Amino acid sequence: MKLELKRIDDAFHLEATNEDGAVAYSDAAPKVGGSNKAFRPMQLLLMSAASCSSIDILLILKKQKQEVRDLQLTIEGDRDSEKVPSLFTDIRIHYKFWGHLSEEKVKRAIELSITKYCSASKTLEEAGAKITTTYEINH
Amino acid sequence: MKLELKRIDDAFHLEATNEDGAVAYSDAAPKVGGSNKAFRPMQLLLMSAASCSSIDILLILKKQKQEVRDLQLTIEGDRDSEKVPSLFTDIRIHYKFWGHLSEEKVKRAIELSITKYCSASKTLEEAGAKITTTYEINH
Repeated sequence: MKLELKRIDDAFHLEATNEDGAVAYSDAAPKVGGSNKAFRPMQLLLMSAASCSSIDILLILKKQKQEVRDLQLTIEGDRDSEKVPSLFTDIRIHYKFWGHLSEEKVKRAIELSITKYCSASKTLEEAGAKITTTYEINH
Repeated sequence: MKLELKRIDDAFHLEATNEDGAVAYSDAAPKVGGSNKAFRPMQLLLMSAASCSSIDILLILKKQKQEVRDLQLTIEGDRDSEKVPSLFTDIRIHYKFWGHLSEEKVKRAIELSITKYCSASKTLEEAGAKITTTYEINH
């Protein structure tokens, strides 16, 4: 897996390109002079874990013929602000499902994603973050 | 730090929004049915480490009155494909600088970023990735 990254202004606005030509942007925090135009690096870590888990869950529920009409989530991360570098200590994900879904299957899909399949959330866990999950199902 | 994530098609195309309203996209790998329109979760982890390190380096060199005309890099990650989840085992970053820069200062800025300041690359290291760096300076 390979990416290219380049600076695209005189400050910290960065553009990344993957091997398939998709483009994504990042930026520094305002307190160090970032222009706040794009996700900051630690936000990309949370986004990675949230995306990875969502994809796993959608795949698992699809295999079980559960039709997910919509999926949204919020992810919150706390960091150890006393330290440099400042890694995530606690991460909370709240999943919101829409569809006529089996609660048992949804619960199990979330559990399998976090404990077994998702490489991104596992990376954050291995680096010391405690991940907790909650969910709601809107029929 | 908080993000929202939502599915925006019937497959795995996801849209994330941060607290400042910036938007970013992710997608699944084609082999599981992703449409390849955006970065995959593990690509976001690499992008996070690359961005974080670039921002650190630009900040350090700015403090030292080193004028970086341009900065680009490539980042490559190997994963343990035998395992599920499949975490990064080796990450290689090659930085390309443009400007009349002190090689000693560039070298030290890269080192400080990876060993001391960058929370995103440290997260990947804590999760088992060995990170190696190389650089070139184009005057």
